Amino acid sequence: MSINATEAATGNTLIERYRGVRAQSDKLARPLSAEDACVQSMADASPAKWHLAHTTWFFEVFVLAEQVRNYLPFDPDYRFLFNSYYHTVGAQHPRPRRGLLTRPDMTAIRAYRDHVDEKMYALIGSGLDASSSGVVEVGLHHEQQHQELLLMDIKHLFSCNPTSPAYTTAAVAAAHCIPDLTFHEFEGGIVPLGAGPVGFSFDNERPRHDTLLQPYSLASRLTTNQEYADFIRDGGYDDPLLWLADGWTTIGKEGWRAPLYWREVDGERFEFTLAGLRPLDPAAPVVHLSYYEADAYARWADGRLPTEAEWETAAAAASLTGNFVENGSLHPRPLQCADAKQPSQMFGDVWEWTMSPYTAYPGFWTPPGAIGEYNGKFMSSQMVLRGGCCATPEAHIRGTYRNFFYPANRWQFGGVRLARN
Amino acid sequence: MSINATEAATGNTLIERYRGVRAQSDKLARPLSAEDACVQSMADASPAKWHLAHTTWFFEVFVLAEQVRNYLPFDPDYRFLFNSYYHTVGAQHPRPRRGLLTRPDMTAIRAYRDHVDEKMYALIGSGLDASSSGVVEVGLHHEQQHQELLLMDIKHLFSCNPTSPAYTTAAVAAAHCIPDLTFHEFEGGIVPLGAGPVGFSFDNERPRHDTLLQPYSLASRLTTNQEYADFIRDGGYDDPLLWLADGWTTIGKEGWRAPLYWREVDGERFEFTLAGLRPLDPAAPVVHLSYYEADAYARWADGRLPTEAEWETAAAAASLTGNFVENGSLHPRPLQCADAKQPSQMFGDVWEWTMSPYTAYPGFWTPPGAIGEYNGKFMSSQMVLRGGCCATPEAHIRGTYRNFFYPANRWQFGGVRLARN
Amino acid sequence: MSINATEAATGNTLIERYRGVRAQSDKLARPLSAEDACVQSMADASPAKWHLAHTTWFFEVFVLAEQVRNYLPFDPDYRFLFNSYYHTVGAQHPRPRRGLLTRPDMTAIRAYRDHVDEKMYALIGSGLDASSSGVVEVGLHHEQQHQELLLMDIKHLFSCNPTSPAYTTAAVAAAHCIPDLTFHEFEGGIVPLGAGPVGFSFDNERPRHDTLLQPYSLASRLTTNQEYADFIRDGGYDDPLLWLADGWTTIGKEGWRAPLYWREVDGERFEFTLAGLRPLDPAAPVVHLSYYEADAYARWADGRLPTEAEWETAAAAASLTGNFVENGSLHPRPLQCADAKQPSQMFGDVWEWTMSPYTAYPGFWTPPGAIGEYNGKFMSSQMVLRGGCCATPEAHIRGTYRNFFYPANRWQFGGVRLARN
Amino acid sequence: MSINATEAATGNTLIERYRGVRAQSDKLARPLSAEDACVQSMADASPAKWHLAHTTWFFEVFVLAEQVRNYLPFDPDYRFLFNSYYHTVGAQHPRPRRGLLTRPDMTAIRAYRDHVDEKMYALIGSGLDASSSGVVEVGLHHEQQHQELLLMDIKHLFSCNPTSPAYTTAAVAAAHCIPDLTFHEFEGGIVPLGAGPVGFSFDNERPRHDTLLQPYSLASRLTTNQEYADFIRDGGYDDPLLWLADGWTTIGKEGWRAPLYWREVDGERFEFTLAGLRPLDPAAPVVHLSYYEADAYARWADGRLPTEAEWETAAAAASLTGNFVENGSLHPRPLQCADAKQPSQMFGDVWEWTMSPYTAYPGFWTPPGAIGEYNGKFMSSQMVLRGGCCATPEAHIRGTYRNFFYPANRWQFGGVRLARN
Repeated sequence: MSINATEAATGNTLIERYRGVRAQSDKLARPLSAEDACVQSMADASPAKWHLAHTTWFFEVFVLAEQVRNYLPFDPDYRFLFNSYYHTVGAQHPRPRRGLLTRPDMTAIRAYRDHVDEKMYALIGSGLDASSSGVVEVGLHHEQQHQELLLMDIKHLFSCNPTSPAYTTAAVAAAHCIPDLTFHEFEGGIVPLGAGPVGFSFDNERPRHDTLLQPYSLASRLTTNQEYADFIRDGGYDDPLLWLADGWTTIGKEGWRAPLYWREVDGERFEFTLAGLRPLDPAAPVVHLSYYEADAYARWADGRLPTEAEWETAAAAASLTGNFVENGSLHPRPLQCADAKQPSQMFGDVWEWTMSPYTAYPGFWTPPGAIGEYNGKFMSSQMVLRGGCCATPEAHIRGTYRNFFYPANRWQFGGVRLARN
Repeated sequence: MSINATEAATGNTLIERYRGVRAQSDKLARPLSAEDACVQSMADASPAKWHLAHTTWFFEVFVLAEQVRNYLPFDPDYRFLFNSYYHTVGAQHPRPRRGLLTRPDMTAIRAYRDHVDEKMYALIGSGLDASSSGVVEVGLHHEQQHQELLLMDIKHLFSCNPTSPAYTTAAVAAAHCIPDLTFHEFEGGIVPLGAGPVGFSFDNERPRHDTLLQPYSLASRLTTNQEYADFIRDGGYDDPLLWLADGWTTIGKEGWRAPLYWREVDGERFEFTLAGLRPLDPAAPVVHLSYYEADAYARWADGRLPTEAEWETAAAAASLTGNFVENGSLHPRPLQCADAKQPSQMFGDVWEWTMSPYTAYPGFWTPPGAIGEYNGKFMSSQMVLRGGCCATPEAHIRGTYRNFFYPANRWQFGGVRLARN
Repeated sequence: MSINATEAATGNTLIERYRGVRAQSDKLARPLSAEDACVQSMADASPAKWHLAHTTWFFEVFVLAEQVRNYLPFDPDYRFLFNSYYHTVGAQHPRPRRGLLTRPDMTAIRAYRDHVDEKMYALIGSGLDASSSGVVEVGLHHEQQHQELLLMDIKHLFSCNPTSPAYTTAAVAAAHCIPDLTFHEFEGGIVPLGAGPVGFSFDNERPRHDTLLQPYSLASRLTTNQEYADFIRDGGYDDPLLWLADGWTTIGKEGWRAPLYWREVDGERFEFTLAGLRPLDPAAPVVHLSYYEADAYARWADGRLPTEAEWETAAAAASLTGNFVENGSLHPRPLQCADAKQPSQMFGDVWEWTMSPYTAYPGFWTPPGAIGEYNGKFMSSQMVLRGGCCATPEAHIRGTYRNFFYPANRWQFGGVRLARN
Repeated sequence: MSINATEAATGNTLIERYRGVRAQSDKLARPLSAEDACVQSMADASPAKWHLAHTTWFFEVFVLAEQVRNYLPFDPDYRFLFNSYYHTVGAQHPRPRRGLLTRPDMTAIRAYRDHVDEKMYALIGSGLDASSSGVVEVGLHHEQQHQELLLMDIKHLFSCNPTSPAYTTAAVAAAHCIPDLTFHEFEGGIVPLGAGPVGFSFDNERPRHDTLLQPYSLASRLTTNQEYADFIRDGGYDDPLLWLADGWTTIGKEGWRAPLYWREVDGERFEFTLAGLRPLDPAAPVVHLSYYEADAYARWADGRLPTEAEWETAAAAASLTGNFVENGSLHPRPLQCADAKQPSQMFGDVWEWTMSPYTAYPGFWTPPGAIGEYNGKFMSSQMVLRGGCCATPEAHIRGTYRNFFYPANRWQFGGVRLARN
């Protein structure tokens, strides 16, 4: 399977963008059997079918039910079944039990999508006010987030199968050479942080505000598998002084000795990917690290993780290109050549862990109603990641985009870029 | 759907019985979608697809691989994937992770069944020695056990779905009257227990041996929903003096206040069945009780549960008829008329909890090899149930048949018949 | 410290026996600091202080409060604090939180004991009716049970301390020789089981009744550390075919590779005892095995565990002598010479696991009221052990005595005697 | 008991401060029985005896063993037993098992303290270089932290006892009036944050650096019990929209409906304090809230928690007076009169939760060796609290002091001061 760029990124009108994003979800689901789309491999993950239904639910509940006079829900049970965490909407089917919903089956969910799409086309076609268009816009970015989650979750599910199934046949070309790691220096000072009023952004990226940075430097590229393997060989997982206390407890309890998807077969290192089990490419960026591992690696490498302000300041000068889901390889790729002027690989490939806990920007304001439940309520105990990854839609990422996960999470495509004072 | 009697029960030749049992498994799987057949709702349950594969694996590993020269396995991974607990055969895919196997999919498993069946027909047709025939016989009874497990597991899975899906449309006729509960007296003395050498039996039913019984009496019929509801209304779940200590702890921890599948909707009592949510029939036998609940009920009702020897002695005079899977209702049915001479409903409807822990008969002997792993290794902390239920194949049950579950298990069709000294 | 025989065993009058048993509890507590007597090392264990208070509570609640007009409780809070599991008496301080009761302190508990003893002496001296005398008798045997529990619990607590404290300085003499293991044959037939009406017995030993035994043989002595070490060296803990399924799961989850208190220090085997860490004596009976380990060992040794009826029948001919708490060594001792006519070491040293689940004898009847809560409510999922151990008061044991623990329990002094068909 | 100011706060020489701090620890332990000082009520807490030993261990391991030629440890086992989390020093007795150490007993620990004190007096008297003096200084602040922990842990332990024991008889005077809540405005701008080079500070307060603040306002006083009770009465614990997602999950799982030590007795509100159970004073500051509760309360009250930079900037103008451990009431006291010019109660009474996750200041640098393990390794998933509390030594607090706990922790004296944009 190969996933090519859809119109999602490029559509100019709302209806084009709607069509593009919705089509992309369907495309991502195509390689999945009914079973693949139903099963939930852990409490953090959701079934692909659930992602397809929930993103549709978003439009039905927040747009159609609000804007279409006498709108009849496709199925009244869905309001409960496919609510993720919106207390404003009502009770929710418990997250760890999403995989138990063998019914409605895939056919019903496809019909649900078609039904809602048809109504949405009619509604958008009839003209929407700015507020409603804004909700549709949120819904599209919301669906793009779930597209990435769908890939993460399928990867985790397939990794639980001893036969190592492949979701795609796409290959990642090996690197010819890997540029030396150097550091780019930044001056610091008063810099702007966050998203301004133009263009789409999530509430957690706002308001744009000034912050004060000390001078810092940032690695010219992402940390590679080879470098991470050196850390392991040097006893990285055995030295408590390299680890945060919670991290040391976690790796002990979980028995972690390598990134989530590394496998050893007959003495050789392999990596489970969405294309199945592949020999580990030493030149490719290391991926599927927890924050604890990223932080320990950075300490071992005489560095630290960047703050999100440092990262965003450096990213302001970078172009928004990179290895995104549209490339179809669905795996980070080795850097082929480096830009000597500024850090490479800032966007795409892997989400870069920052040392910044996920918290509210000064002046952050939660909108009333369900949309207000979107981001603010997750602002505790999570860390910010930046830059998007090989499973992120290209049109979804921005320099100000704040992703966030718990420090022990590994199933997202999280990697490392070093920083230094 | 309705499940009619197959040839399984009546076939005279081994090949006819093989055909009949295998066809019955396929029939039971027919109402299931690919998703239904894949998902595992708890660690104790297995996916339907897994049951279909594992019963086939039994014939492939224990018969074909042993008897067919140069037999090539259908898929070498299956030896591991579909091994339940036979350490003699090798390592096993962990039981709680059976539901993660979205691949091989249903189509592959059907092909696996066809492949093994074809080879089995050829092998049986070519003539088998007594020992191999015996293993085939065990395999057929083994598959019948899994047929009942498949129904239990699907019922549990569907019960986890807030939309209460139905596996069958069959109805259970309501009772016109319910006979009074009386007690039949038995004299005791030296009685035989267990299965003799003629006819099929499992190792745990052997050897047939004498045991000494005190006089006892046995209820004329099963305990009904009405009687159990009286126990609840009388505060049965609130009075610690009625309960075993472990039982009291369990109902507190689990929050149990009624049998597993009872539901209250708008103040009315319903029961989740394989035909979906149905109003609770007061005259039908109560079902899906744990041992703890059966025991507490018996104490409340001034009785006790029978021992397995008491039950078997009474059952020796009963005819092997009753409400089995072939009836298709897949639910215990109210007793319509009673036999005044001996206890009714001894076979079928519900498995009857006995107060006998599951342990070895004097002289019990574990055969060497994998078949020896069949029953003996479960002889700790479980209780014996007798008589078969509405999900048991009629040809599978015997008076000497010993089923066993942990005292806290409720997803099997377990009910109560009272005994008294 | 050495614990000599008290009058408990030999006193002729009730008041003498009361005095003797109570004095023995105080004596057992003497080597303990206030801290030792307060801490609870696991949910199954209780603090020594709690044992001292609870055994006193038994007399206060079941005797004084019933028999003494206008009896004022020593402290009204104690009714709740030191109730173990008597729902008839009222709510209970939760068992796993007994160790949190730093107050009342040891001084208060000693005053409580003195207060209740004084009232009890007066009451017994004034004459008691048969029913009340019977309750006092139960209270004394109850306190003897807690004396053994106190030693078990202190041993477990001290074993959790990396400095391996010693409760006693008593030594166990090493063996000069160890008699060969032989088997004594028994004919079977109809035999009596359980306690008759003469002399004290617990409810679970009654009623005495006939049962039918097949012929069997019983080992001439207990299994030794050397024999168990052979089992380990032969891979006993690595071979799933030797284990009950629950046992295999348990040793995997708990990481068990040897009896509870075996330790390896610089390549040498030691055993933690109530006299601290001692080199393992190969000739001494193996002790602190779970049922699972006892059962697996027996299977490896081409035997099985005896049933309780087999054991009791053999014990009927044995004298009630052995290594009990009064010897003061508080550890099983090697057999010095064997009786060629009948099995040795039947009483004392270690509790012998039987293959009999703990269940009611035919005709077992639970007395009404709190005393009825004594034994019956534990009749699920536990196994019977017979014969008493080195921490049991000599006067407490009988041939019909039924002790019971869960198959995974190891902190009681449980060992193995082999049986064969 | 009353705890008066010791010389700790006022001593001018190192030896005077050493004497004062050590004497204060002994004083705090005086009301405790041996049992009180030994038991551990939860994994987060430590026994008082352990605090007394561990603070002594700090001086023995980091000062005496380094500075005294041929120093012989008081007891070699203590290096392991009383190591908290210093991997540099070696392995540690596991934290949740500290309460199992009934030996060494209190007498031994007192002897340990005397022994180390004697050696320390000699060493300090003989003159120390600056680096060693610095380690002693850290050791004294370290011991002051453990003094507060000792009080927190004893409070938790006593709260687990149904008899509600009192550690002190000191009373807190009730308030005559409670000033209205007003807000003080701050301008923001570039402000300094953290500790400079003069005077003692922990590594996590350094380096002092500039940061950029937006304008904000801060409540004139702490939130009171009355105000928090209003939040509860208004359904605060029932409205998911007020809570962080993790907070909502936590209060559901834990069943939290009020601050940790609130109790309802016969319909009246009480509070468990170190002086036992007392009627809840509506005018006193609310205390023993988790971060989740503090955050939800602030949202309900149309405010938010301050950042630590906002708090520190406001505190820079406040005097370092307040209700500290030296007052002896060991409980927050109601505000009697307010300073109209600036926020009251900034220091003492309760630790004030901030919305700032605990993370490294720009340029934070971990010293090599064991001292480097002090603070940095806890920088994940915790939140900063500021200002000290009624159990904090007065000499221990500073405007730049950063305390930190997990958002679900409640046993520290945590309360709320509102902030607004």
